[in-house]
Amino acid sequence: MPQSGFQHVGRDVPRVDGVDKVTGRAKYTGDLVLPGMLEGRILRSPLPHAHIRGIDATRAAALRGVHAVVTAKDLEGLDPFYNGRPVVAMEKVRYVGEPVAAVAADDEHTAEAALALIEVDYEELPAALGTDAALAPGAPLIHDDAPGNVCAHERVEQGNVEEGFAAADRVFEGRYTFPSVYHYSMEPHGAVARWGADRIDLWSSAQHPFLVQGDIARIFGLTRSQVRLQVSFLGGGFGGKSYSKFEPLVVLLSRKAGRPVRLCLSVPEAMVTVRRHGATVKLRTGVMNDGTLVARQAEIHLDTGAFTENTRMVAQLAATRVLGPYRIPHLRSDVYSVHTNAGSAGSFRSVAAPQTIFACESQMDEIATELGMDPVELRDRNLLTKGERLQPRLRPVDVNLHSSLKRLVSGSRWRRRARNRKAPLGVACGSTNAGGVLPVSVALVRLGPDGYVSILAGSTEMGQGVKTTFTQIVAEELTLPRDRVQAVPVDTTVTPYDHSTGASRSTTVMGRAVQAAARDLKRQLRAIAARSFGVAAGKVKLSDGRLEAGEQAMSFTDALACRFGTIAGEIVGRGTMGPEMVGWKTPVLWEVGMGVAELEIDRDTGAVALASYVSVADVGKAIHPQHCIGQEEGAAMMGIGHTFMEQMVHDDHQLLNPNLVDYRVPKFEDLPAEYHTYLVENRDGIGPYGSRGMGEGGIFSVAPSVVSALARATGVRIRDLPLTPERVWRALRDRTSVP
Amino acid sequence: MPQSGFQHVGRDVPRVDGVDKVTGRAKYTGDLVLPGMLEGRILRSPLPHAHIRGIDATRAAALRGVHAVVTAKDLEGLDPFYNGRPVVAMEKVRYVGEPVAAVAADDEHTAEAALALIEVDYEELPAALGTDAALAPGAPLIHDDAPGNVCAHERVEQGNVEEGFAAADRVFEGRYTFPSVYHYSMEPHGAVARWGADRIDLWSSAQHPFLVQGDIARIFGLTRSQVRLQVSFLGGGFGGKSYSKFEPLVVLLSRKAGRPVRLCLSVPEAMVTVRRHGATVKLRTGVMNDGTLVARQAEIHLDTGAFTENTRMVAQLAATRVLGPYRIPHLRSDVYSVHTNAGSAGSFRSVAAPQTIFACESQMDEIATELGMDPVELRDRNLLTKGERLQPRLRPVDVNLHSSLKRLVSGSRWRRRARNRKAPLGVACGSTNAGGVLPVSVALVRLGPDGYVSILAGSTEMGQGVKTTFTQIVAEELTLPRDRVQAVPVDTTVTPYDHSTGASRSTTVMGRAVQAAARDLKRQLRAIAARSFGVAAGKVKLSDGRLEAGEQAMSFTDALACRFGTIAGEIVGRGTMGPEMVGWKTPVLWEVGMGVAELEIDRDTGAVALASYVSVADVGKAIHPQHCIGQEEGAAMMGIGHTFMEQMVHDDHQLLNPNLVDYRVPKFEDLPAEYHTYLVENRDGIGPYGSRGMGEGGIFSVAPSVVSALARATGVRIRDLPLTPERVWRALRDRTSVP
Repeated sequence: MPQSGFQHVGRDVPRVDGVDKVTGRAKYTGDLVLPGMLEGRILRSPLPHAHIRGIDATRAAALRGVHAVVTAKDLEGLDPFYNGRPVVAMEKVRYVGEPVAAVAADDEHTAEAALALIEVDYEELPAALGTDAALAPGAPLIHDDAPGNVCAHERVEQGNVEEGFAAADRVFEGRYTFPSVYHYSMEPHGAVARWGADRIDLWSSAQHPFLVQGDIARIFGLTRSQVRLQVSFLGGGFGGKSYSKFEPLVVLLSRKAGRPVRLCLSVPEAMVTVRRHGATVKLRTGVMNDGTLVARQAEIHLDTGAFTENTRMVAQLAATRVLGPYRIPHLRSDVYSVHTNAGSAGSFRSVAAPQTIFACESQMDEIATELGMDPVELRDRNLLTKGERLQPRLRPVDVNLHSSLKRLVSGSRWRRRARNRKAPLGVACGSTNAGGVLPVSVALVRLGPDGYVSILAGSTEMGQGVKTTFTQIVAEELTLPRDRVQAVPVDTTVTPYDHSTGASRSTTVMGRAVQAAARDLKRQLRAIAARSFGVAAGKVKLSDGRLEAGEQAMSFTDALACRFGTIAGEIVGRGTMGPEMVGWKTPVLWEVGMGVAELEIDRDTGAVALASYVSVADVGKAIHPQHCIGQEEGAAMMGIGHTFMEQMVHDDHQLLNPNLVDYRVPKFEDLPAEYHTYLVENRDGIGPYGSRGMGEGGIFSVAPSVVSALARATGVRIRDLPLTPERVWRALRDRTSVP
Repeated sequence: MPQSGFQHVGRDVPRVDGVDKVTGRAKYTGDLVLPGMLEGRILRSPLPHAHIRGIDATRAAALRGVHAVVTAKDLEGLDPFYNGRPVVAMEKVRYVGEPVAAVAADDEHTAEAALALIEVDYEELPAALGTDAALAPGAPLIHDDAPGNVCAHERVEQGNVEEGFAAADRVFEGRYTFPSVYHYSMEPHGAVARWGADRIDLWSSAQHPFLVQGDIARIFGLTRSQVRLQVSFLGGGFGGKSYSKFEPLVVLLSRKAGRPVRLCLSVPEAMVTVRRHGATVKLRTGVMNDGTLVARQAEIHLDTGAFTENTRMVAQLAATRVLGPYRIPHLRSDVYSVHTNAGSAGSFRSVAAPQTIFACESQMDEIATELGMDPVELRDRNLLTKGERLQPRLRPVDVNLHSSLKRLVSGSRWRRRARNRKAPLGVACGSTNAGGVLPVSVALVRLGPDGYVSILAGSTEMGQGVKTTFTQIVAEELTLPRDRVQAVPVDTTVTPYDHSTGASRSTTVMGRAVQAAARDLKRQLRAIAARSFGVAAGKVKLSDGRLEAGEQAMSFTDALACRFGTIAGEIVGRGTMGPEMVGWKTPVLWEVGMGVAELEIDRDTGAVALASYVSVADVGKAIHPQHCIGQEEGAAMMGIGHTFMEQMVHDDHQLLNPNLVDYRVPKFEDLPAEYHTYLVENRDGIGPYGSRGMGEGGIFSVAPSVVSALARATGVRIRDLPLTPERVWRALRDRTSVP
């Protein structure tokens, strides 16, 4: 047993879904086969912007084996919008790939043949790709209700930014760009719908089942209890499976066909369905000669794409995240979400952070260079201390950032390595307001008559290991072996409500609900034992799955027998987390990510690679250290992707690289030889056992630490991602990018 | 609104499953189709008693389309017995129809063809059909561990029966026989099993899903949480679908085939799977000249059949039920459960009551006739009063029996009609110790973010209307429209534990758990509103689905928003009923059934029919009066069946009438012109709102009231059921049966 006194928490226990996954027994949404199930396919717009004059689906509908063709006509009587998008295009298309019609047929070949028979009469309109084009004077208007194509404007302001800049010794300015990138989950999004007489059964690889359930109910005019959404496993999510994506269209198909319909997206389809917001960040920072930050002004353009999705929240987060984890008395940030003729952007691991932190931390490095300061010292001087407020309306910072920086410095041997002023070495720090909106999670923990325990919790298992974590928490609370505890798959009819799986919230918020449910169960068990032993409940202790008081002891099964007079019945523990958990203020938690990069640079070809990457995550308490490290390193690997290679490339509005051959994601060979993560565990998080949400913080320090390392070694500062060899080679040749 | 102040309780609201059932949308187990599903068929013994020398399934297994053949060999490593029977015959067969092997194949024709290819080498043994044969000296021994073929002997004794008889003025003796009869649910029992890597999914038309789940887990060495049993609707149960029947064999097939397997019994198969215990009751009653009962002695032989099933419980109930609802100071009853070479008997609506009450109430009528007393008066004199104990170890009688008798007398216009001493009029009374073993039921009631409420309760809907009842209870407690409340289908993974659906316990025990869960939810809602209103929780009232205190009011959805800061989350109410509900004593409730029959007798042919039947059920409080009347009249109709026509007829050990043509059940034309039920509602039951379990009491007064009416009109007392025209004609001809 570890010194901590924990039996399960803090241990690298086997994943509960591990064997199922490696043996292929784990079933994903696309594996589902229902009797009479049809295959669905979507007809997508070939044009970036056009009026739809008419659709003739007669020939498609007449094709043998076709059971339904749906178009906007089939939306009559429904409430057809969700997250700003229509279930299927109405009157207009706004991006290449927008669903215009869909078909359900006996098999996928028939469905695809039917798509080819649908005739759509388009009247092409001028299009705008990218925020610059969409914001340019005379740009085509993508939505009538978004003048200038701006669909959200969020401002965060404090102090007096003009006075701040006037008081500053030095002012730094820069313009940083971050491309649109794609999540590339190994499993593209899939859904199966079965329309019943007065109920809908839906299976989807949705991250937030209860939000999708709510959308479907509203769109089709049903109650939530008439919509049953089941989620088995997700083959990765990373935010790409947040909210409803195309589930309403699959339901519409099933309704018309009167049969179950499965529709799994291909990768090219998935890539136009969701991506990260590309961003342009104009950043100005005023600083004293000793490195003290005094003022910051930011203007950020987010490439929202055709529909708003959750862009307002992304803009809100960007406006706050540009503050960095620093004390800056005077600030104004303006974030504009901009409609463009591209597929919609949405959530992506650490929403809005990689874009803003790339800009802010790059500029911090430029400041350090100009002031001749050690970049670590500059950060150390300005980092918020625990309990300070980044902003008055936010919860105080609940984490010791200096502690992480110290760990990063020692773990990366920064001081020794940084003695070489030209070493290809860079550092970056970030802290994000995480945990999503107000916390809402409900869990049940049930003890059955054979002494086994079930966890009913609505967090989806998408590889992050949440089922294993919950099992550890419940086993710990109840002093049971882990194999006596099982997490039930998510099913909205039976699993209690959980707001969402994302924003690093599941262990923290749902974990607390699960823990509370286990403790509620424990309280009931102790009361039963106390009555039986004739002692006060406070005298009953749990140990090794038994209830003990002095010489007396009973098993949980004994307790059930005491309660029910026979080995029968069950005891239900209940745990609910609401906004009181965080005093009704956001964020739920402050997430931390810091990293030090060292590069290998080939000056002849411009090829840059990571030689070493060391990161730190303050996890409060690692419930499963290996999972924490895996998540942190996985996040850093995604950061490596958008730093060095990933971007969605368009030509004439067409996505040129919609597959793994053309859209490069990191391979193992792209990993640095030294790739290490340190976990900081101060037991000061708001989650169970002092844990703190993590898994996103690892992504955002890679790009700024890498560009800073390149600048330190070469004097060339690149402000546009990714660092393709061509871009680096040109920059080295031109040396035009030096600040 | 009714004067009672109830909004939903006490009203004949539409059945929640009504539309689904009349439109055919309701899916039963046999309607289930799983991808890759095979059809299972069972090879059954053609012999009543034999050793199995060997089974050669080689040819069957080799047949194209056959995926699994299982025999006893496949039981290795399992715990193969349940309720005394093996999963499939081992070494011996003990009745015609016993499963010897089973096949899973692509379709039912292939499966049946394969059955024909299985060669079984039997060594036939002498057999015993019926308890007389099985108890005869030298009878073949059916189980080695049941000497004399007696597998259970239960005795109930009080007072000193010899002294009692010695003190009696008169002693009456008789021998009464009751045949084996079949439940004849419209849906024969079906099951679908899918064996997974480390879990089993099972769908079954099982009345007691949690008991079946427990059996499967034990047999296959799994935990309960690895066995998921779902039950949609049952097309009738009546006890015939109690406990595990053949589900373990279907699981075994699926395990071997590696594919899902469906196996639905045909009626002939179902009839050898379960039936009511045939019984012989030898009854002796001592009485004073004024009609006061003083002593009773009974010896009952129950035809258990090949395997014990639940025969010990049936014997226990028979031993008590022969007491009648009367004060009898001296008593001894001995009940013997006897193995015979027939399919096993099990539970059947009002377990052990029709057999014993037929005997007791027939004899009561014989006593009244001999003493020249009005049969109603004889009963009135001896009926227990509320609070008296039938037996010291039992809970006191919790119902006013005189109140029911009074209602029966007035409702049937007994006094006026009984003036004619030869009128073909008979009466019978009964009260049974119902509610099953100790009460164990757990329910959850969940309020979701759209203001709709789900009930999670493990009572199976088998036509009795339990879902509707629970919906009424929850709607009543929460002051909601009923369409805001939905009962979730039973699923052992998600529905909390419930002991069983039977023994008239669901409304009483689970209904109380559901009510408690709704009240727990209500308590939480009031606390939320009270905090928001700034008043004490006691000041908050529920009305029309709103929470009100003085001028202030909020909807349930408002309350969720208060609790969670947004329209999200859910509130879970929890209700648990355990033995404390009844002070740790049985019975859970005393169920009442009384009836008056009037006959039409064709003395030339022996054809007897009911001209009128009036019954009384003391339901405490009718939550759904129409359902109560439907159940009471349905039970009486089953009573009409075993009184006039039903019996399983064997010749040379073969069941001769295994179908609806040869096994006659009552049709609408068999119903009397006057067929009326009166409900007594004294609000004194232990169930919600003073309700009391019912639905079984209607069955047992039919036979004794009918034979008594026949005796009153003709002087011929028949002590053997059913009253076929031939039997009546012979008795009238012989006049040998008069006491």
